[in-house]
Amino acid sequence: MEVINYLLGYKDLKIVQNTEYFNFSLDSVLLANFVTIRSNTNKIMDLGTGNAPIPLILSTKTKAQIYGVEIQDAIYKLALKTISINRMEEKIKLLNEDIKTIDKLFETDSFDIITSNPPYFKITGGSLVNNSNHKTIARHEVLMTIDDVLGVSRKLLKNNGILGLVHRPERLLEILTKMKKYNIEPKRIRFVYPKVGMNCNMILIEGSKNGKEGLKIMPPLFVHDKDGKYTTEVEEMFGA
Amino acid sequence: MEVINYLLGYKDLKIVQNTEYFNFSLDSVLLANFVTIRSNTNKIMDLGTGNAPIPLILSTKTKAQIYGVEIQDAIYKLALKTISINRMEEKIKLLNEDIKTIDKLFETDSFDIITSNPPYFKITGGSLVNNSNHKTIARHEVLMTIDDVLGVSRKLLKNNGILGLVHRPERLLEILTKMKKYNIEPKRIRFVYPKVGMNCNMILIEGSKNGKEGLKIMPPLFVHDKDGKYTTEVEEMFGA
Repeated sequence: MEVINYLLGYKDLKIVQNTEYFNFSLDSVLLANFVTIRSNTNKIMDLGTGNAPIPLILSTKTKAQIYGVEIQDAIYKLALKTISINRMEEKIKLLNEDIKTIDKLFETDSFDIITSNPPYFKITGGSLVNNSNHKTIARHEVLMTIDDVLGVSRKLLKNNGILGLVHRPERLLEILTKMKKYNIEPKRIRFVYPKVGMNCNMILIEGSKNGKEGLKIMPPLFVHDKDGKYTTEVEEMFGA
Repeated sequence: MEVINYLLGYKDLKIVQNTEYFNFSLDSVLLANFVTIRSNTNKIMDLGTGNAPIPLILSTKTKAQIYGVEIQDAIYKLALKTISINRMEEKIKLLNEDIKTIDKLFETDSFDIITSNPPYFKITGGSLVNNSNHKTIARHEVLMTIDDVLGVSRKLLKNNGILGLVHRPERLLEILTKMKKYNIEPKRIRFVYPKVGMNCNMILIEGSKNGKEGLKIMPPLFVHDKDGKYTTEVEEMFGA
């Protein structure tokens, strides 16, 4: 079923979703609020954009040209509707493409920022994959792996351009190691905790292409307070 | 000047220190409270034990035989006095040895736990080293590197034996990568923050020899509250 929702607290932003597909989640909101946007940020790309929550939130924070890439045709069409409803056709360009070949459509070294909330789970022989193919592709590394994201980023980011990722803590070491392999130097991490006293369940990572070594571990981010409500910090992200 | 101090809030424990040397710090207290002690833990070794704060604190938590290894003669002698004042000669054995050859004095695969608060800083051409040679050796990887700690641990730990480390966040990726290289699988990390809103300045890491993959990022540890006092959690560590 296709529905139009408000993008949480972003009062002016609506998002078109389909209950049979993977719907946008908190992860994207946190990533869009984590990534470092500068006054001279001109070009941003979101890889595996889904129904485009990251481009939508970023559009409230920058005048940069934003591109969103989505391989799945049905999801791409929903994202188009979302962009159209919000009258963002100029600011956000959507591409129904495979991220593995997207570098052929753009100049190398031309993006200030690349973001991605990629599929979190590796494909293994015993993987329990989701019933719906759309959800499987969004959650499992079927069509897009962390290596794919890093490979495109190395090509398309400017020197010192920024890659912002959200991922799972289980893959921390692998992601940091691979970032270095692709010359994306890890610079900032925030560990996200569902609430005080619980283990981390999400990581926000920012790297800089050909950047200088020096990783900062930022203050932890708690999503809920003891009563189960959003913390002030997360609430403020939704109040933009 | 040689002084006898109480080991912070550990009312029964005294520690002999010399103001010209590197004195024990919060790091050791946090590590001794972080490491997983089991009811069947029989043998523990602390590498680069200094004036033996980690063995002393661990002695309040376990009946295991604890060994502390310190290469610097003057520091070793202070530690001996500390052990003697606390009448711990049976429970804590000190060795004035180099950790790089300590494996020759013990059976391989014989320790349940190895701990270390090693020197944090790499030696580089431009390293600013401390005036006092004792302090330099405690802070810089002159006589003991992270590779040395991991090499000994691989030899002396039992299968699934535990290595507990405290270190600096700048070296997180290197340490995790090297742990895997030495077959010490990273299992638990706690990031330590001086207070709310500040970046992490210390990491607590536990690995398991030949352990199964699966890294957990535990709740963050805040040292001070907003008023600059120790948080309840840290205060409780001192209240043992």
